Amino acid sequence: FNSSAKKVSLKSVTSIVDGLKRLYIEKLKPLEVAYRFHDFVSPILTNSDFESKPMVMLLGQYSTGKTTFIKHLLRSSYPGAHIGPEPTTDRFVVVMSGPDGRSIPGNTIAVQADMPFSGLTTFGTAFLSKFECSQMPHQLLEHVTFVDTPGVLSGEKQRTQRSYDFTGVTSWFAAKCDLILLLFDPHKLDISDEFKRVISSLRGHDDKIRVVLNKADQIDTQQLMRVYGALMWSLGKVLNTPEVTRVYIGSFSDKPINEAIVGPIGKELFEKEQDDLLSDLKDIPKKACDRRINEFVKRARAAKIHAYIISHLKKEMPAMMGKAKTQQKLIDNLENEFAKVQREFHLPPGDFPNVEHFREVLTGYSIDKFEKLKPKMIQAVDDMLGYDIPELLKSFKNPYE
Amino acid sequence: FNSSAKKVSLKSVTSIVDGLKRLYIEKLKPLEVAYRFHDFVSPILTNSDFESKPMVMLLGQYSTGKTTFIKHLLRSSYPGAHIGPEPTTDRFVVVMSGPDGRSIPGNTIAVQADMPFSGLTTFGTAFLSKFECSQMPHQLLEHVTFVDTPGVLSGEKQRTQRSYDFTGVTSWFAAKCDLILLLFDPHKLDISDEFKRVISSLRGHDDKIRVVLNKADQIDTQQLMRVYGALMWSLGKVLNTPEVTRVYIGSFSDKPINEAIVGPIGKELFEKEQDDLLSDLKDIPKKACDRRINEFVKRARAAKIHAYIISHLKKEMPAMMGKAKTQQKLIDNLENEFAKVQREFHLPPGDFPNVEHFREVLTGYSIDKFEKLKPKMIQAVDDMLGYDIPELLKSFKNPYE
Ligand SMILES: Nc1ncnc2c1ncn2[C@@H]1O[C@H](COP(=O)(O)OP(=O)(O)OP(=O)(O)O)[C@@H](O)[C@H]1O
Ligand SMILES: Nc1ncnc2c1ncn2[C@@H]1O[C@H](COP(=O)(O)OP(=O)(O)OP(=O)(O)O)[C@@H](O)[C@H]1O
Ligand SMILES: [Mg+2]
Ligand SMILES: [Mg+2]
Repeated sequence: FNSSAKKVSLKSVTSIVDGLKRLYIEKLKPLEVAYRFHDFVSPILTNSDFESKPMVMLLGQYSTGKTTFIKHLLRSSYPGAHIGPEPTTDRFVVVMSGPDGRSIPGNTIAVQADMPFSGLTTFGTAFLSKFECSQMPHQLLEHVTFVDTPGVLSGEKQRTQRSYDFTGVTSWFAAKCDLILLLFDPHKLDISDEFKRVISSLRGHDDKIRVVLNKADQIDTQQLMRVYGALMWSLGKVLNTPEVTRVYIGSFSDKPINEAIVGPIGKELFEKEQDDLLSDLKDIPKKACDRRINEFVKRARAAKIHAYIISHLKKEMPAMMGKAKTQQKLIDNLENEFAKVQREFHLPPGDFPNVEHFREVLTGYSIDKFEKLKPKMIQAVDDMLGYDIPELLKSFKNPYE
Repeated sequence: FNSSAKKVSLKSVTSIVDGLKRLYIEKLKPLEVAYRFHDFVSPILTNSDFESKPMVMLLGQYSTGKTTFIKHLLRSSYPGAHIGPEPTTDRFVVVMSGPDGRSIPGNTIAVQADMPFSGLTTFGTAFLSKFECSQMPHQLLEHVTFVDTPGVLSGEKQRTQRSYDFTGVTSWFAAKCDLILLLFDPHKLDISDEFKRVISSLRGHDDKIRVVLNKADQIDTQQLMRVYGALMWSLGKVLNTPEVTRVYIGSFSDKPINEAIVGPIGKELFEKEQDDLLSDLKDIPKKACDRRINEFVKRARAAKIHAYIISHLKKEMPAMMGKAKTQQKLIDNLENEFAKVQREFHLPPGDFPNVEHFREVLTGYSIDKFEKLKPKMIQAVDDMLGYDIPELLKSFKNPYE
């Protein structure tokens, strides 16, 4: 995060996100509000949705070095960090930039509108009391937020159940995160049942997963090959993607690499791997920006289709009599109405919302009160998609590609 | 194969096999012959079944170094060996000990009664013309026979079909072999469709499989880790056993290890791996002997059950009239007759032969002509199982365990 070229590029990233935010408020949000997109599909975006930093989550068995990894990258402990050979981190900790070093309890963060964590309230107070935000001023945290997690349990310990939906939480964070690091150490290779469930909870985000074989300097080269091979053998089955997931082999802590065991070649290998991982981390802001643009465009398309559906239903309503009956008929035959909209505006059927869910929300409304189609609003979104966003990307990206 | 302790041990192994052969002829074979075990279950064992050496089969894509591997172990080429970067070995070659160096064509070996290859005639002349026996006098070949194979095909080449049932042949050899080496090289990692079928054809013999990542000195350490990881990733899925298959990493040829690329640690690692593989190979005669004892005992049990079934059927036949009708009834209700035998002699149901197959063979016989139960013959086999074989193992094994 130090080269000056990177700094300019990160600035452009910020500007793109800023540009998207302005476009959202001016052109997309009015359409969403007019047709109640937030009730049917997804809440109105807030500043925190645009401003939140790219996130990296660390997962792994206890004592595999997750907290030490973050400390190593920051070159200092985060407020409230605990490191030790026994299970130490007992909560989810979001490590982010802030004006001064402090810990904020989960219940407090979850209600803060300028933070992207309000969704976590659905996991209940049992979870929120195991959730914490650790803030400190730090150069690296200007660009990335880390999520430290409690060690995944195995064997015996697994039986003492968690008081909250652990895999539900990991799945929630997986969706928000830009990178997920699974940490292993040579003595903790087994993928326990809880770990398997955690990995399943990451489904759909396989492209974000990287694996770290940490503390690799604790065993000699031949053992390391065995350990690494066994890890790949079982990961291949558990992750179940055809692409081989990248595994970084090394020792991510401030301790110097144990050359007595691994020899000079091992040291060289680990340093190369560490460099690779760091440059992967450096790419995150750029990639996170690409992901946001992509999601923003998808959202705009969905909002347009939503507007077409709502205004179509409104158009089908009679001017005077039989409103209740017509409403019921429309709700009952929603599939047909969707098909009509699809044909009229030449829309891809795959982009349509789930009929059942739509029907459910719709029953709570009086269709007659919906807005008619407002071509100007649609036109604004079309302009945004066809002109503003490409211009935004062009003006900020060209110099670096 | 050089230490003197090993030599003694190998001698004892030979003696055990010799003991089994004598026991077979004296005690088991008479029972098998009396009740036509060879027609119903398995051909009479010949000298070659006892005397054939433990076999090691090499499988892998073309040019992964299978032929070179054998040459390296023998420290000389075998008669008819071809080594080269393009697909070279175009046939199955059994490399075994013989009085002088020569190649014998497949059609000739398959009919030789003193060779264990007559079963291969079922694969037809198209196969036999791609089968060869290469003989030479050699210390190592006194103890192990190698099976060199044509490279498994991938992609394009796969489409030009083989003229015989390739995976049928690999499956046949897998059953006869004591060790199966799958060779990969860093530039030929992909497991093609034919390779997948070959691996499936080894099912049931997973414990015999070892993997060799050959030519490992052609890439640097970091690349090697990637390559090895990718190999384990896909092997885990294809082999589909929970136990991780042992992979030996190294370069098995007479060329010195390319230290410029892998450095001194790589060299050290490869040498350790090579030593491990060699000691695994040295264990084969001992393990092959254990396997033979095991299979011999299983055969003896099966022959006894077979004798009980046949003599039971015979007993059910009437003395004078209605023989044809009774025979038909017995054949139709074979399941019930099996159950009666099982109850009468307290036999485990899982040890009984397949009813359908038994019924099929039985239809060709006149049950009336079968032998009655001959308790002396059964007693001989029981004595063999309960006394002779344990004594044999005791007298030859004790000194070395
Ligand atoms: N790369 C490393 N090399 C050697 N020791 C390490 C390394 N990383 C961490 N450790 C040691 O391992 C132990 C566990 O480290 P740490 O507390 O960071 O693990 P953790 O994954 O955060 O565990 P938990 O899940 O319990 O929070 C500590 O004693 C730490 O000093
Ligand atoms: N360990 C090794 N290091 C470097 N080169 C090797 C090594 N083993 C084999 N080679 C080279 O690779 C090529 C192929 O070797 P070889 O003919 O033994 O492979 P093969 O698996 O028997 O191929 P095929 O399936 O076509 O018979 C040859 O040029 C050989 O010299
Ligand atoms: Mg921790
Ligand atoms: Mg060859």
